Amino acid sequence: MKFYRDSIELKTQKNFQYINITDRVQDIVNKSKIKDGIVFVNAAHNTATVILQEDDSSIHEDTKEIIEELVPLNRKYRHNYEGVINAASHIKNQLLGNSNLAIPVKDGRLFLGTWQQVFLLELLEPRRREVTVTVIGE
Amino acid sequence: MKFYRDSIELKTQKNFQYINITDRVQDIVNKSKIKDGIVFVNAAHNTATVILQEDDSSIHEDTKEIIEELVPLNRKYRHNYEGVINAASHIKNQLLGNSNLAIPVKDGRLFLGTWQQVFLLELLEPRRREVTVTVIGE
Amino acid sequence: MKFYRDSIELKTQKNFQYINITDRVQDIVNKSKIKDGIVFVNAAHNTATVILQEDDSSIHEDTKEIIEELVPLNRKYRHNYEGVINAASHIKNQLLGNSNLAIPVKDGRLFLGTWQQVFLLELLEPRRREVTVTVIGE
Repeated sequence: MKFYRDSIELKTQKNFQYINITDRVQDIVNKSKIKDGIVFVNAAHNTATVILQEDDSSIHEDTKEIIEELVPLNRKYRHNYEGVINAASHIKNQLLGNSNLAIPVKDGRLFLGTWQQVFLLELLEPRRREVTVTVIGE
Repeated sequence: MKFYRDSIELKTQKNFQYINITDRVQDIVNKSKIKDGIVFVNAAHNTATVILQEDDSSIHEDTKEIIEELVPLNRKYRHNYEGVINAASHIKNQLLGNSNLAIPVKDGRLFLGTWQQVFLLELLEPRRREVTVTVIGE
Repeated sequence: MKFYRDSIELKTQKNFQYINITDRVQDIVNKSKIKDGIVFVNAAHNTATVILQEDDSSIHEDTKEIIEELVPLNRKYRHNYEGVINAASHIKNQLLGNSNLAIPVKDGRLFLGTWQQVFLLELLEPRRREVTVTVIGE
């Protein structure tokens, strides 16, 4: 059993942006030389998350619309150090993946469904984000 | 430390069906001969998920009712390749477990609370579904 | 690769209480002597969960308010063995972390963002709760 860890740094451009990081996670799995195991994907943030989803802008926009109705910006929040959007992003993070994922690795490849990809989902505004990728296996 | 992986194939019968897969996950843990570790349960789908819950139809129906109010079918979605229910199922997946679970294994048994069971939750319509079960431990 | 497991027992005082268990999880990582790996945090409950969040009461109250609007107490639920709050807590658990977390360990420390902490979140009423902490790494 082996262990390998690396990180992905990225810059987001806007609120509720899904950034497809599947290839970058796969690159780290490749470097790990681990063929069979699990890859863990963690965002060190309360205001962004990691999530599995299809890489299709229509479902990203639908998700944004529903989530913004569930956690609206046009209401008062107590946690308003950085404005209403900050509190809302904390709540969305708790509803959407909560910054941690575990995905199988099979024959050296992320084992995902045909339409599943790995995303960093920005819940706040343009920011530098860091994703930790940990591979455990053999 | 050992690694073992197998999969569960199943056929769902209807939208929002909870299928209890605890025994089938336990069977794979038994085959692994791993006594202490973690078992990972992953659905390779955006329109079904895996989730921990009680095996009681009343709470399944309550959950369905609430989730269908939060992500209603009677609205327009942009992602409508396969009808409104497809977009809704993608959003429900992101809110409900997002297709990945990690559960402790203790003395060769899934370590769950008295009322906790492992489910595949169908979010779309009757389909063939695949769940990957990975055990890591000693 | 090593494996270590321990548990945290705690008593909650009220509904929707976030109890910061980061130090207790860190203590178990210390005892494990594992420097690099993953720590799994699992609650053996359907009516409480584990979740990553900031340790700030304002965001906890905001989250409570939104979640109680999404899963209200003033409606009928079929699952009412222990009153309406029981059904609601089961649904909130499925929306909020679903009782399982995986967090990187780096140089013997939980690798969290500046504002991320690990919480048990009580979704029912004052109860004894048990959290299982499993460390895998080297």
